[in-house]
Amino acid sequence: MFKILLLQGANANYLATREPDIYGSTTVDELNAMLHRHAEEHGDSLDIFYTNVEGKVITHTYRAVDQGVDGLVMNPAGFSYAGYALKDCVKGASLPYVEIHISHIHKRKIESVLSEAAEGVITGFGVYGYLLALDAILHLLNQRANVP
Amino acid sequence: MFKILLLQGANANYLATREPDIYGSTTVDELNAMLHRHAEEHGDSLDIFYTNVEGKVITHTYRAVDQGVDGLVMNPAGFSYAGYALKDCVKGASLPYVEIHISHIHKRKIESVLSEAAEGVITGFGVYGYLLALDAILHLLNQRANVP
Amino acid sequence: MFKILLLQGANANYLATREPDIYGSTTVDELNAMLHRHAEEHGDSLDIFYTNVEGKVITHTYRAVDQGVDGLVMNPAGFSYAGYALKDCVKGASLPYVEIHISHIHKRKIESVLSEAAEGVITGFGVYGYLLALDAILHLLNQRANVP
Amino acid sequence: MFKILLLQGANANYLATREPDIYGSTTVDELNAMLHRHAEEHGDSLDIFYTNVEGKVITHTYRAVDQGVDGLVMNPAGFSYAGYALKDCVKGASLPYVEIHISHIHKRKIESVLSEAAEGVITGFGVYGYLLALDAILHLLNQRANVP
Amino acid sequence: MFKILLLQGANANYLATREPDIYGSTTVDELNAMLHRHAEEHGDSLDIFYTNVEGKVITHTYRAVDQGVDGLVMNPAGFSYAGYALKDCVKGASLPYVEIHISHIHKRKIESVLSEAAEGVITGFGVYGYLLALDAILHLLNQRANVP
Amino acid sequence: MFKILLLQGANANYLATREPDIYGSTTVDELNAMLHRHAEEHGDSLDIFYTNVEGKVITHTYRAVDQGVDGLVMNPAGFSYAGYALKDCVKGASLPYVEIHISHIHKRKIESVLSEAAEGVITGFGVYGYLLALDAILHLLNQRANVP
Amino acid sequence: MFKILLLQGANANYLATREPDIYGSTTVDELNAMLHRHAEEHGDSLDIFYTNVEGKVITHTYRAVDQGVDGLVMNPAGFSYAGYALKDCVKGASLPYVEIHISHIHKRKIESVLSEAAEGVITGFGVYGYLLALDAILHLLNQRANVP
Amino acid sequence: MFKILLLQGANANYLATREPDIYGSTTVDELNAMLHRHAEEHGDSLDIFYTNVEGKVITHTYRAVDQGVDGLVMNPAGFSYAGYALKDCVKGASLPYVEIHISHIHKRKIESVLSEAAEGVITGFGVYGYLLALDAILHLLNQRANVP
Amino acid sequence: MFKILLLQGANANYLATREPDIYGSTTVDELNAMLHRHAEEHGDSLDIFYTNVEGKVITHTYRAVDQGVDGLVMNPAGFSYAGYALKDCVKGASLPYVEIHISHIHKRKIESVLSEAAEGVITGFGVYGYLLALDAILHLLNQRANVP
Amino acid sequence: MFKILLLQGANANYLATREPDIYGSTTVDELNAMLHRHAEEHGDSLDIFYTNVEGKVITHTYRAVDQGVDGLVMNPAGFSYAGYALKDCVKGASLPYVEIHISHIHKRKIESVLSEAAEGVITGFGVYGYLLALDAILHLLNQRANVP
Amino acid sequence: MFKILLLQGANANYLATREPDIYGSTTVDELNAMLHRHAEEHGDSLDIFYTNVEGKVITHTYRAVDQGVDGLVMNPAGFSYAGYALKDCVKGASLPYVEIHISHIHKRKIESVLSEAAEGVITGFGVYGYLLALDAILHLLNQRANVP
Amino acid sequence: MFKILLLQGANANYLATREPDIYGSTTVDELNAMLHRHAEEHGDSLDIFYTNVEGKVITHTYRAVDQGVDGLVMNPAGFSYAGYALKDCVKGASLPYVEIHISHIHKRKIESVLSEAAEGVITGFGVYGYLLALDAILHLLNQRANVP
Repeated sequence: MFKILLLQGANANYLATREPDIYGSTTVDELNAMLHRHAEEHGDSLDIFYTNVEGKVITHTYRAVDQGVDGLVMNPAGFSYAGYALKDCVKGASLPYVEIHISHIHKRKIESVLSEAAEGVITGFGVYGYLLALDAILHLLNQRANVP
Repeated sequence: MFKILLLQGANANYLATREPDIYGSTTVDELNAMLHRHAEEHGDSLDIFYTNVEGKVITHTYRAVDQGVDGLVMNPAGFSYAGYALKDCVKGASLPYVEIHISHIHKRKIESVLSEAAEGVITGFGVYGYLLALDAILHLLNQRANVP
Repeated sequence: MFKILLLQGANANYLATREPDIYGSTTVDELNAMLHRHAEEHGDSLDIFYTNVEGKVITHTYRAVDQGVDGLVMNPAGFSYAGYALKDCVKGASLPYVEIHISHIHKRKIESVLSEAAEGVITGFGVYGYLLALDAILHLLNQRANVP
Repeated sequence: MFKILLLQGANANYLATREPDIYGSTTVDELNAMLHRHAEEHGDSLDIFYTNVEGKVITHTYRAVDQGVDGLVMNPAGFSYAGYALKDCVKGASLPYVEIHISHIHKRKIESVLSEAAEGVITGFGVYGYLLALDAILHLLNQRANVP
Repeated sequence: MFKILLLQGANANYLATREPDIYGSTTVDELNAMLHRHAEEHGDSLDIFYTNVEGKVITHTYRAVDQGVDGLVMNPAGFSYAGYALKDCVKGASLPYVEIHISHIHKRKIESVLSEAAEGVITGFGVYGYLLALDAILHLLNQRANVP
Repeated sequence: MFKILLLQGANANYLATREPDIYGSTTVDELNAMLHRHAEEHGDSLDIFYTNVEGKVITHTYRAVDQGVDGLVMNPAGFSYAGYALKDCVKGASLPYVEIHISHIHKRKIESVLSEAAEGVITGFGVYGYLLALDAILHLLNQRANVP
Repeated sequence: MFKILLLQGANANYLATREPDIYGSTTVDELNAMLHRHAEEHGDSLDIFYTNVEGKVITHTYRAVDQGVDGLVMNPAGFSYAGYALKDCVKGASLPYVEIHISHIHKRKIESVLSEAAEGVITGFGVYGYLLALDAILHLLNQRANVP
Repeated sequence: MFKILLLQGANANYLATREPDIYGSTTVDELNAMLHRHAEEHGDSLDIFYTNVEGKVITHTYRAVDQGVDGLVMNPAGFSYAGYALKDCVKGASLPYVEIHISHIHKRKIESVLSEAAEGVITGFGVYGYLLALDAILHLLNQRANVP
Repeated sequence: MFKILLLQGANANYLATREPDIYGSTTVDELNAMLHRHAEEHGDSLDIFYTNVEGKVITHTYRAVDQGVDGLVMNPAGFSYAGYALKDCVKGASLPYVEIHISHIHKRKIESVLSEAAEGVITGFGVYGYLLALDAILHLLNQRANVP
Repeated sequence: MFKILLLQGANANYLATREPDIYGSTTVDELNAMLHRHAEEHGDSLDIFYTNVEGKVITHTYRAVDQGVDGLVMNPAGFSYAGYALKDCVKGASLPYVEIHISHIHKRKIESVLSEAAEGVITGFGVYGYLLALDAILHLLNQRANVP
Repeated sequence: MFKILLLQGANANYLATREPDIYGSTTVDELNAMLHRHAEEHGDSLDIFYTNVEGKVITHTYRAVDQGVDGLVMNPAGFSYAGYALKDCVKGASLPYVEIHISHIHKRKIESVLSEAAEGVITGFGVYGYLLALDAILHLLNQRANVP
Repeated sequence: MFKILLLQGANANYLATREPDIYGSTTVDELNAMLHRHAEEHGDSLDIFYTNVEGKVITHTYRAVDQGVDGLVMNPAGFSYAGYALKDCVKGASLPYVEIHISHIHKRKIESVLSEAAEGVITGFGVYGYLLALDAILHLLNQRANVP
């Protein structure tokens, strides 16, 4: 069983109301339920953390590391543009990190400054991308667990 | 009667003390009084919110939207440079937004990343610019109200 | 009583016919009437000058300076892109200058080369912006008149 | 049942031999077997096409479109850098397209010119990424099939 | 006796755990003790403030200015990349400011947006740089105190 | 019968004398005669207008629009480099516009700022290009006339 | 009688199906018929060659040169973006070359790397542009034939 | 005896009033007198032409060429920034051309787009530079006259 | 005895006919003969492969690697500009690679995207450069063979 | 006891006379005395070398390396801009190197090309910075000496 | 009587032999004689200094300043490209400085990094430019001498 | 018999000690011996000149030209980055010039500003490259000698 931390960046708590043709109509509650279900099915624990303040993600992440979290999934959302401090935090945390974006950010000419700290990135598949991201982080954690 | 939200970005709470030849000598209290008076004269309500933390403006804005605010005036101040998350929030809020800068930012080679989310921008007229901005947002709100 | 010179750059004389969803449907005659009325109400005189030839604005401005004009309002319109000679003229004229654009030029990725010669800039409020610009220039002129 | 076309760009046929610390040690045969198994389990058909010649992918894609393929998965590999003609082809083909890269290309400062034609992109999870890509394309196809 | 404010930016509270080959193995507690000792030896008082939230440094700095702090030392750390609001705050605070970076940021192709607000900068000497920075701020404060 | 306006930009009135190895040796009179003959053969009317003053082309164009011109052919010549005001005019005029350059401007590293307002562009065929341009504008006008 | 080689670059063989609002609805067969008719009317022979592989155009061009072709017309299509090898081939072939693009590529922010090897370029007139291009190449060939 | 044409660009007719610490306090009349005296002393004729309209300089220059002018001196002034049409005119005029700027334009980060059409350039010596420019053009004309 | 693969990129098969003042007048047959003679004299075997299709060089190279080739010499010719896929192939092939250009490409402002995969590069010495390149690859192979 | 080499680049020998508001009013003799005193107090030897010729610093540095110098302090001064050869020398010398600038070069938009070869950099503290630099180099040398 | 220092940068001592169509055919000896004669006629003294070593010009200039030189004329020649140290020296020397280039460097796309330290610049008039430069420096020195 | 001048730029005299994994372990003496031997075997004379001062290479080169040197080989080494004055000298010297770099400079992202003055360039083959460079210069000299 792995402990996964799922971080939701600025504006992510407004899903379903904000620009639905870009971000879809799934609500935050529906998303959370869907993700917890998916994690449980794999026998893993999931901590989902939303905030609009970059510094709070940093503090939360360090705390999670101290408490033995195994892997990180993040939709940096509003922090994608200038979240350099967060990127340093993620690099410093030394955890496998999977980045997910609901929309296809490259098509919208947005570059995530955090992505270079990730193992891999999943973009453009709507909220379904979170499931792929969970699959990916579990794959990575299993892979590492199996290396003698 | 319209409900206007006036957001004051980082460092704006230090008006009159900080670099007076750029920002003038009106104090925050004098400015607030002047703006409330102006709003009252037009029969409108005004909520003024100051913070140095970008994430808090985002949270405050979403809350105001939920409570039925009609229009947004903002001096992004210190958030002008890298407030991308705030820009996404303002775009998502789907309110008419008027941006105001006390100094003439283009002359100082500063570009506001938020301005592309605004209906219009007013720069360089000192604190008098806030009055113009209030006039502008009311004009926009009346215009929309009059469209059958 | 102040003497204001209002300059209308290239293509501005075609308001209401040219791309109405960008520039609105107010005609040049309606605009002129509205502005003269606004100036009269404040007891000020207003000279409105339209031309498509940049050099003619320059000549007109120098002449107005010789005749004691107090302040300048300009919508550089088609001169916004490459009106460097006009910018030098405005700088040389040593008058308070307020710049106004009908559309929100930053949203359209247009930069006005003249704006760095302005006291302040008003963009994006349609023809209503001219009224804000008149208010602004009068505010600036009164402010200067009051400094002992 | 959906018909999926999986395109493998230049150099992809040399997997497992070429720079194994970047691309892993799975061979082409192992990969193909794994992918066909995965498609069969979902009841879908999969056509895998390898070539080092960009023009041949273009011809193959048009042909597949004529034969009723439903969706496209591609690892552009060596075509990522300058495959503009291929990008135009993919755009012209009007199929949902999922892009997959074995390595985390952004970390290596590589940009895929094709990705703006994709629905979404998956990078950095090694050959496991192909499975995620298949899941993603099927999710997209089901989603479209369900829209009345 | 001078009152010095020492600000520690985002991620700085994770010294010794985060990437030790870049930042060394001194812990935050050891560093604090070393700095307080150094300040005491010179008969100066030192306030050390850590936070991951940029807005909180801004608020803390204005408060310190109100309480008569004499000089500023800061390791902007994670705020180096996009701390423009903080830079404006430091400029507005009108205090001598010495910037210190543990690693040699230029070698790592990082530019601190805050450094142009500093009197001087010290980079690359590990935590020993804090001692040099304290020496430097005291030198500057003495120099100013001696100018009649 | 269509009414075509042919605009000749700055320096175009000096054909045959100015740099003949770039622009050829046909004189302005010969060119005019050739073009009128070509228009007559197709039963169309042609107004040819030469000027060195950008603002005058703008005024002339608006006037022609008022008088019911059907299509525009222009060799912007000297206005190619910085004729932004003219570009806005052409866009505002809402006429099909064909651009023609005598020399192959791309080979000479010249970019016409007006060309993005054109339906199409013809460059590099000497004065023969004017005939192609007339054919092209007539083709476009016929095409539009035939759409029910 | 001149022998003209008409080259059709990548994706051009998919005319009428691919993005019809950009490229129109004429089919490849209709286009070929139209062009052969036009050539015959002028008493010229026309070889039309389609391929998606850049190297094959190069080989075909050298062969045509050996067989005495007189002039080149090409729609580089998908080769416009990065067809540098083809550009060198065309330069080396030492034939008059006319470039044609169906859409107005400058408006779509596309630059053809081949165009600097052309005598002239025709863009934006749909498939009608091919007729203009044939006229242009014949004009150039006649012009050269007439120089004693 | 040589016939020299001296062209004075936009804003040059406002010398002595406009920004005297940049352009000095010599008036236009004093300057003209000084230059005519200097030309007469060398037995040469001088035509001085001022205008704020770029197109008028172009027309004037072509006319002067027709009337047998021998050399050109110009202070492009306001045309320095975007006078591309004028540059083409000067190049087409095929006369030796000496460029003069009153202020040291490079120090002010201004580049004259016309200077590449000049034989040589003189900048930064105030109105005295006009005398150097006259000396230079006469030197060039004499040099050419002496080549058999 | 070493087995050397010599690859000749796009357009290289047209040596002696194409732009002889850049590429010289040696024919392909003369070049091949000269190179085989040179290889024989050193007791080495040489496979020379010409193609205009980038993908074919890739396929040929992988095959040669499978058959035990020892070293690579290539004139990328037309592939120099955008042969990124080929560069990845050469890097993946893990062979010592010597790059040769007949002309001095830097002087012509051409950059070879492949050269960063080479051990060394020889440019500008005409076809003689091939002999230098053979000497260089043999030197490298001998050097490696001698390292115990 | 360590042997320190202190290099003073171009123009540094003109301290106190050259632009005193940037560089202060300490003379070269005073500076030298101060530095020797500081070195003696720590029991270290100091060789100070001034030159305006970059090549001479290179030669001097190699010689010092041969004679067993332990560490390098340098104010590259005039060599900061383009001292690439000197940078290679410093890198080749394999000594700990501390860079010092009297003024705050980043504020003046100057970048030192040498700084990437340094362990650390000290800028902006006037001549006092030399004392910090000596402290820093001694700290580094002691640190290395203490590593078993 | 003024003392003028004339500095001749790298390669200037090879005049008349080096690329005569750019630099003319006057020899160094002829040039020196011409310049001394011109200085004597005005009753001024002239020191001409040639060197290929940038550092030597710096040393020579400081020495000349100590010996009371009044003004500087320099052809930086080979130092134009990267003579930043020399530029700092000239700025520090606080003398009026006139820059002269034999060829028209802007036409050759060369920028002199020294020119921003000059009062004015003369380019493109061959060796005759030196006479203009002497006239200019004397004009500047007289002007300053006449200011009470 | 040809007279060859071999120039060794800044830092080249420190071969074998400086960064041996980049530059190899051959000493300067071994290199010189090897080169003289190679020249003698071909019956040519070789002058090898080392210096760290760019101006001295310039002076040496002009002197060698006066003494009838036939060809130039140079490793610009530390002068590669900013040796513009030296480049002008080499161009002025009008000798065939072969450039050689021990390491593969393009791989290290270094560009030699001198290379555009060379006939050809050899990079990346260690000190063996000097032998190739000698072969190349002799080939060029023989070629020229044989042209009648």
